[in-house]
Amino acid sequence: MIRVLLAEDMHLIRGALVALLGLEPDMEVVSEVSSGDAAVSEALRHRPDVAVLDINMPGDIDGLAAAAVLAERLPDCRVLILTSLGRPEMLRRALSAEVRGFMLKDAPPAELAGAIRRVAGGERVMDPQLAAAAITGRRNPLSPREVEVLRVAAEGAEPAEIASRLHLTKGTVRNYLGTIVTKLDARNRLDAVRIATEADWL
Amino acid sequence: MIRVLLAEDMHLIRGALVALLGLEPDMEVVSEVSSGDAAVSEALRHRPDVAVLDINMPGDIDGLAAAAVLAERLPDCRVLILTSLGRPEMLRRALSAEVRGFMLKDAPPAELAGAIRRVAGGERVMDPQLAAAAITGRRNPLSPREVEVLRVAAEGAEPAEIASRLHLTKGTVRNYLGTIVTKLDARNRLDAVRIATEADWL
Repeated sequence: MIRVLLAEDMHLIRGALVALLGLEPDMEVVSEVSSGDAAVSEALRHRPDVAVLDINMPGDIDGLAAAAVLAERLPDCRVLILTSLGRPEMLRRALSAEVRGFMLKDAPPAELAGAIRRVAGGERVMDPQLAAAAITGRRNPLSPREVEVLRVAAEGAEPAEIASRLHLTKGTVRNYLGTIVTKLDARNRLDAVRIATEADWL
Repeated sequence: MIRVLLAEDMHLIRGALVALLGLEPDMEVVSEVSSGDAAVSEALRHRPDVAVLDINMPGDIDGLAAAAVLAERLPDCRVLILTSLGRPEMLRRALSAEVRGFMLKDAPPAELAGAIRRVAGGERVMDPQLAAAAITGRRNPLSPREVEVLRVAAEGAEPAEIASRLHLTKGTVRNYLGTIVTKLDARNRLDAVRIATEADWL
């Protein structure tokens, strides 16, 4: 019997996934939760073989952060990320968080159980198209500080406000914004925010 | 027997929802599709009692546009929108498209079958909290032309490019952008894009 923990914040979707896994004779959902925090605490309590985690969940930590914590505190529990975010940067972050599997919500439903079995058996499971995109695609060219500046700019703040929030001078902020626009090949600040948002760099 | 059509683009989620509805003795999923276009053509072929439609789907028409077509061409088929977009503007648009039900993907799973039964029986089903927000919330203050201008600006275009794409003068575009920033109480153009995007006005 493979003991599964399921973390998905949309209650109805979670229930539907439990119904789907209920069709498998060799699997048992031992815990279902709706946040990254609950995924960690429930996993420590139930010690599942596989934790199936959504990425976007409310609370202090998302699915990827929960995966990183589990990799450290419960190494025998393998993590399978199940997400609608089929974007290379997400796969990259998942692999850094030591997840064993990365599956998209638009995969054929019959493949979920197979992926859980393979991950439980110690294999890696990955969407091959997304893996190819993550290998060949563009990496984030921004420094952590530049990301920080752009994140505040994305909220609509003017340079003066960005400067005061990040304890920088207005001139420094203008320099950062100029560098960011150049590095991203953007037409302007708004375009830079759009490019970075679409690439999951913010 | 209530005959149900299910339109949801994420294959695995669709399969899970079918598994969930499979637990109900009085329901039968007669068709499952992954786009708004397919929802319309399959509904015309199978004539289901209820069409359960996601909003965001690939293809020419989304779930709301499909609902509007069905309301006209297949008035006996009731539409229940099932979405993760719990935002007032979406409910407003859904009601304009004459849907009978609007349900969020984070509702308790047991409520889906109940909602389908009530919609099939001619009742309206609506998330009450979202209904309240849609009634009291702010309406889109922008004219269709202003929305058009802001949409191109959101792609990162400078006024000159917006002007040429929309066959306006650069001065007119600047005037529009000024009006938009004022109407939205925004700090700048980027802030206006953020406000309008978060409110689903773009």
